Amino acid sequence: MGITETLAGLVAGTRYGDFPPPVIHEAKRAILDSLGVALGACRHPTIDILLDLYAEMGGRGQATILGRGIRTNVPLAGLANGTMAHILDYDDTLLPSRLHPSTPLVPALLALGEERGARGPDLLTAFILGFEIEARLAEAMFPAHADRGWHGTGTLGALAVAGGAGKMLGASPEALGRAMAIAATQASGLIGVFGTMCKPLNLGKAAMHGLLSAALAARGFTGPPDILEARFGFCEVFAGGWRPEPITQGWGERWAIVDNGYKPYPCGVVIHPLIDALLQIRAAHGVRPDAVAEVAARVNPYALILTGKTEPQTGLEGKFSLYHAAAVSLIDGKVRPEQFTDARVRDPAAVDLRRRVRAEADPAVRQDEVRATVTLRDGRRLEAHVAHASGTRGNPLSDADLVAKFRDLVEPALGVERAEALRAAVWSLDANGGAGDLARLAAGHPQSS
Amino acid sequence: MGITETLAGLVAGTRYGDFPPPVIHEAKRAILDSLGVALGACRHPTIDILLDLYAEMGGRGQATILGRGIRTNVPLAGLANGTMAHILDYDDTLLPSRLHPSTPLVPALLALGEERGARGPDLLTAFILGFEIEARLAEAMFPAHADRGWHGTGTLGALAVAGGAGKMLGASPEALGRAMAIAATQASGLIGVFGTMCKPLNLGKAAMHGLLSAALAARGFTGPPDILEARFGFCEVFAGGWRPEPITQGWGERWAIVDNGYKPYPCGVVIHPLIDALLQIRAAHGVRPDAVAEVAARVNPYALILTGKTEPQTGLEGKFSLYHAAAVSLIDGKVRPEQFTDARVRDPAAVDLRRRVRAEADPAVRQDEVRATVTLRDGRRLEAHVAHASGTRGNPLSDADLVAKFRDLVEPALGVERAEALRAAVWSLDANGGAGDLARLAAGHPQSS
Repeated sequence: MGITETLAGLVAGTRYGDFPPPVIHEAKRAILDSLGVALGACRHPTIDILLDLYAEMGGRGQATILGRGIRTNVPLAGLANGTMAHILDYDDTLLPSRLHPSTPLVPALLALGEERGARGPDLLTAFILGFEIEARLAEAMFPAHADRGWHGTGTLGALAVAGGAGKMLGASPEALGRAMAIAATQASGLIGVFGTMCKPLNLGKAAMHGLLSAALAARGFTGPPDILEARFGFCEVFAGGWRPEPITQGWGERWAIVDNGYKPYPCGVVIHPLIDALLQIRAAHGVRPDAVAEVAARVNPYALILTGKTEPQTGLEGKFSLYHAAAVSLIDGKVRPEQFTDARVRDPAAVDLRRRVRAEADPAVRQDEVRATVTLRDGRRLEAHVAHASGTRGNPLSDADLVAKFRDLVEPALGVERAEALRAAVWSLDANGGAGDLARLAAGHPQSS
Repeated sequence: MGITETLAGLVAGTRYGDFPPPVIHEAKRAILDSLGVALGACRHPTIDILLDLYAEMGGRGQATILGRGIRTNVPLAGLANGTMAHILDYDDTLLPSRLHPSTPLVPALLALGEERGARGPDLLTAFILGFEIEARLAEAMFPAHADRGWHGTGTLGALAVAGGAGKMLGASPEALGRAMAIAATQASGLIGVFGTMCKPLNLGKAAMHGLLSAALAARGFTGPPDILEARFGFCEVFAGGWRPEPITQGWGERWAIVDNGYKPYPCGVVIHPLIDALLQIRAAHGVRPDAVAEVAARVNPYALILTGKTEPQTGLEGKFSLYHAAAVSLIDGKVRPEQFTDARVRDPAAVDLRRRVRAEADPAVRQDEVRATVTLRDGRRLEAHVAHASGTRGNPLSDADLVAKFRDLVEPALGVERAEALRAAVWSLDANGGAGDLARLAAGHPQSS
């Protein structure tokens, strides 16, 4: 039996009862965080543009567009909400691949689940399995996949959504294999579009492609049964030297979602350890920006590859500038969405300080690690070593931290009461309620509140 | 100025009056052929499945689904009709890349043009320019692009449609650049799905992605201005060692559409010279299948790479088996859709004869060329050299040939009168009428005629 067929069989054969309680709880944490980061961006111009196009296209009102008080058909809801969940660059992240598995999955499965009336355990099962597919494909295909220029959550995400949605639809192993094949031939997303609205679009399209794939497969649309391992199939074309073993080995022994990380800061995850370090130094020593002669950091090489913008011009570029993030960490003592506005990125004091930040790539430094030194004009050297950035597996955010982040993002969109009701609905997803309840609570109003 | 910006400026600056009459005529031939091969497949199960999904999704009735008597929104019409136009593997082909530029372009621009009320010259202009974009990208990126496993018409087609649709919408050079960027990050389509419904889906998705991209760009959706040449941009990620010169050099000196080829046989284009050769030998010598000891062919290497299936099991696989095509050429003396049914592929006489076909790859043989020898059991050797397969640039189908093919495909879908009216409307596209007229005539009825 081939890899694709084996994987499809494992997905089809896994039941809710197979997941231990910590896995269920982690899935609820991921859903809560994903809804929060989506709702925090529900009024972004990127979404306004999509909704203007939707008004022209029309479509049945099957699924809710988060925070906007309107409904559209399932694939377009997946597209809008999947895009929305990545706009703030605040979404959960799996290391070492830096994928954001929940970002296409939660919006896609919520849309399909709303239309199908999926109960909590069905939603959780589809989500945990979609997450598992994405994480295992990442282990098989990274780092080659990203090194070739692919936005992995866009590409792998389409197959993950196809698998999760297929699971929700009760697909046979054979239909799951076809769903993944149909998704594979639609998989897309270039790193070269980072810094524009196309970046979150990549993840919205992953949600849409995956939903379309599961819907087509359920109707008998044909695709090859061996898409992962086939000649000119998914793994070969998208990654070259891939390893088949991680895709199916040890299934059920542990679930990848327990490795999930949640961002305390709305910017590239590889900057997070440096932010932690500088906030620690600032808190301990009360550093004033004009007293800083230099900030020096030893970082993982990806921190420079992905977030090496020395002179960002917009808030969006600032999210991918470790220099800007370092500067505002020291100046503001916090790193929130307001630290990544266009104005904040162009602020003379921030510009001035970021030019005194030096970063050196060191392959021995992990992606969740940093060694930082702040040298003051008086000659003092303040040092910090962060072994595991906050929000990563080695230093996780508590449930309370996650809820605080969620409230911060969701209350402006839904109001305090609805935000609290949505939080409660997510936490009780294993006991009662389902996708429809989440969608109803997260719907919001056509006009902003 | 970068390559993308230069290309966008050239597209924006080209007007209908810049095309000499033979270019306009070739565009009409391509539109006629594309409508024909689409309508010939309008009742295929692939389309039934898509339309079943569309009924669930809903959408405004902006554009016609060819031959099915129903309308949907523009992107979904592009998806259905673009898929339809590739189902028979009978669509026009540009050598040496073997792209089918019209297949996503004609359905996409027809859908947009119907909604926008585009006149003939606007439709022709957008089409010729979209064709030009696709052909030039192919020249820049082939053969590396296909050798990496990409279904080039799916990937490059999305950018071509974005450019053509943007042109139809009157986009600025800047907006055309963004449209191509949005398309590039959606570009997809694996060779590994050939032989399934996913193959035509690739081209339908190119139509849909391109239409979505132009619509989003017109609304201000952002994308990088340099998507073709950017680090981790389209050309690098999809082709590695690409050449920028063909993308913009010599613009307007000649138009790629004059190199377009039209298929006389509904199967892989690289088999066509062999079919020509065997039909010639059969006609000249009256060969009986049971008299054949062996068929030997020296073919271009791609004939074996793309159509080397020795034991096809379905009609669809038969289209990519030079062995089957050779056998039915000699047995039936014609190669039409009925030579690629499941039954015909499994016919014992066809199976028996195809096992006596030997093909040898020879890089000195062009894709439109073959040297074939039929050895009879009585020892006679019958030889034929085809220098340019019928339907290719060196041996083009006449207008009368194209019209005969069109009628053969369209009359069962629309009836004789409508088919004739549609033919006349295409031929007069430069003088009167527009996209809406073509769509109305090609609409057909919800039930088959």
